[in-house]
Amino acid sequence: MRRLVNDPYNVVEEMLEGFVLAHSKYVTLLDHDGRVVVSKTAPVKDKVGVIIGGGSGHEPLFLGYVGPGFADAAVIGNINTSPSPEPCYNSVKAVDTGKGCLFLYGNYAGDVMNFDMAVEMAEADGIRVETVLVTDDVFSSKTFSSRRGVAGDFFVFKAAAAKADTGASLDEVKAAAIHANNHTRSMGVALSSATLPAIGGPIFKMEDGDMEIGMGIHGEPGVERGKLEAADKVVEKIMPYILNDLPFWKGDEVNVLVNGLGGLPLMDLHIVYRRVAQILAQHEITVHASFVGNYATSMDMVGMSITLIKLDEELKLLLDAPCATPYCIIK
Amino acid sequence: MRRLVNDPYNVVEEMLEGFVLAHSKYVTLLDHDGRVVVSKTAPVKDKVGVIIGGGSGHEPLFLGYVGPGFADAAVIGNINTSPSPEPCYNSVKAVDTGKGCLFLYGNYAGDVMNFDMAVEMAEADGIRVETVLVTDDVFSSKTFSSRRGVAGDFFVFKAAAAKADTGASLDEVKAAAIHANNHTRSMGVALSSATLPAIGGPIFKMEDGDMEIGMGIHGEPGVERGKLEAADKVVEKIMPYILNDLPFWKGDEVNVLVNGLGGLPLMDLHIVYRRVAQILAQHEITVHASFVGNYATSMDMVGMSITLIKLDEELKLLLDAPCATPYCIIK
Repeated sequence: MRRLVNDPYNVVEEMLEGFVLAHSKYVTLLDHDGRVVVSKTAPVKDKVGVIIGGGSGHEPLFLGYVGPGFADAAVIGNINTSPSPEPCYNSVKAVDTGKGCLFLYGNYAGDVMNFDMAVEMAEADGIRVETVLVTDDVFSSKTFSSRRGVAGDFFVFKAAAAKADTGASLDEVKAAAIHANNHTRSMGVALSSATLPAIGGPIFKMEDGDMEIGMGIHGEPGVERGKLEAADKVVEKIMPYILNDLPFWKGDEVNVLVNGLGGLPLMDLHIVYRRVAQILAQHEITVHASFVGNYATSMDMVGMSITLIKLDEELKLLLDAPCATPYCIIK
Repeated sequence: MRRLVNDPYNVVEEMLEGFVLAHSKYVTLLDHDGRVVVSKTAPVKDKVGVIIGGGSGHEPLFLGYVGPGFADAAVIGNINTSPSPEPCYNSVKAVDTGKGCLFLYGNYAGDVMNFDMAVEMAEADGIRVETVLVTDDVFSSKTFSSRRGVAGDFFVFKAAAAKADTGASLDEVKAAAIHANNHTRSMGVALSSATLPAIGGPIFKMEDGDMEIGMGIHGEPGVERGKLEAADKVVEKIMPYILNDLPFWKGDEVNVLVNGLGGLPLMDLHIVYRRVAQILAQHEITVHASFVGNYATSMDMVGMSITLIKLDEELKLLLDAPCATPYCIIK
């Protein structure tokens, strides 16, 4: 195993301890719940509380996007495991100021179950909590609402958070999140499994020199497993799935995220970006802003995903709005 | 090989093409020299030109730190290879506005030779260029000035760039860089080699489950190779080398960088940061600001380094000063 950890059953607690020490300018842990990372600026008066979360192992997602202009709190589960209902509920109590809260997370069964229980707990306390699931992973289902959430989380969370910052109502923030999600599509490729500290090795087996297009960030099966091909060929295989799904048309304006899954060098991500940009130019689709790096990982998994979000004037304003978090600063 | 590239002999050109497409808000390539990444704001009138550079494969170093508040240009060599004298010289012509330029790079023989030739070429043109070598890698030599430069580049470059932004003279900017370098110490650990596209595999052999403390970012030998230990133990072995070398004392104030070499998850880097912070607290050394992530990599090498810079009032101001580059934004 090529990981640098202590007790493999304590990695999440130790990571969180290190995280709030390193980024104490932005975030802290709830005193009474060590699985809730809250912004130092939360709660913000007269603002809808924006809460994100999910399993660990996808850093900087989720905890890296907590701070002014982005999420008010992130709820952190064990590796690839939903947080329990209790911390989800505690996050609501920590950030609500009477305008209600929005739960935003990728669509996974465990997360849905636990966050939904927290919604009920909050309602019993008279706090209204709405939920928007991110469902950007094109290959994971033919039905849009059944798809998994992957790196598109980044755009959807950011748009909703910026909307909340305008003083919008919970219904308006929820609508902005749904709108952003409807406009977002992702697909990726994996060249390896992630390494799970508790088993001291890979989560699933993948030969060196193989790749799987469309694989999920937890190793969910993709569209094809085969021999690794050149970066350009891989991008050429992925892009039609993304472009045809929404679809994205000539004349559209998009933001692009070329997201590293953890173990792929920034060099390769830029080689991928080059081909993505060429294909978008061929389709006469304009790029407004680009993000290249490890935004939503699967620990040390070697691979990447491509995300496009189709912009309109409001989405552009929301995604361009300033934010200051440990792993995303927009001036 | 688990890399996503096209022609392995064309990775640097394709990366650069992707890089300036993705980050066109900040940087461009020189029209007449595709190995020079220049800030869109350069040249800046009445400011010393700050030029960084070195071999590729360490991204986001060097090209990720070009932009207002940081470097005016970065000169890019092949993987683990110095840039040629010509692009170094071309970078000077592109950013000099009569106040001269400062070359800043990690201390490696090839870089010294080629950047020094560019200094002579510039002098023949009547442009004064000074050089400061970063020598932060504690284990690489007993003689401070003979040491290699590693992730400490980040702090030294930033301090010098911020000094140049104050309108300081070339001698003053050079003095600030030397001062920052004198106060900076790093040491790391590697758990694997990087993968070199041109050979289709690792640069050197390292068994899964081994580690080498003090190894250089190109695989230069370290202080000991042995079986991988717990993260805390590794940090406890590294920290005394760093603390005793400057030395750092009780009452000192520092900035900390826990730098990923490419393939180590952000989770592990925060587990490392946790122990670093504990040790600093035991020594009554105060942390002013912390940076955790892939700042100076060796492509997909699994490993990390720890860098401390001892602060005084001026260094604090310089390192806190705002900057806006593709891979470092400080508000």
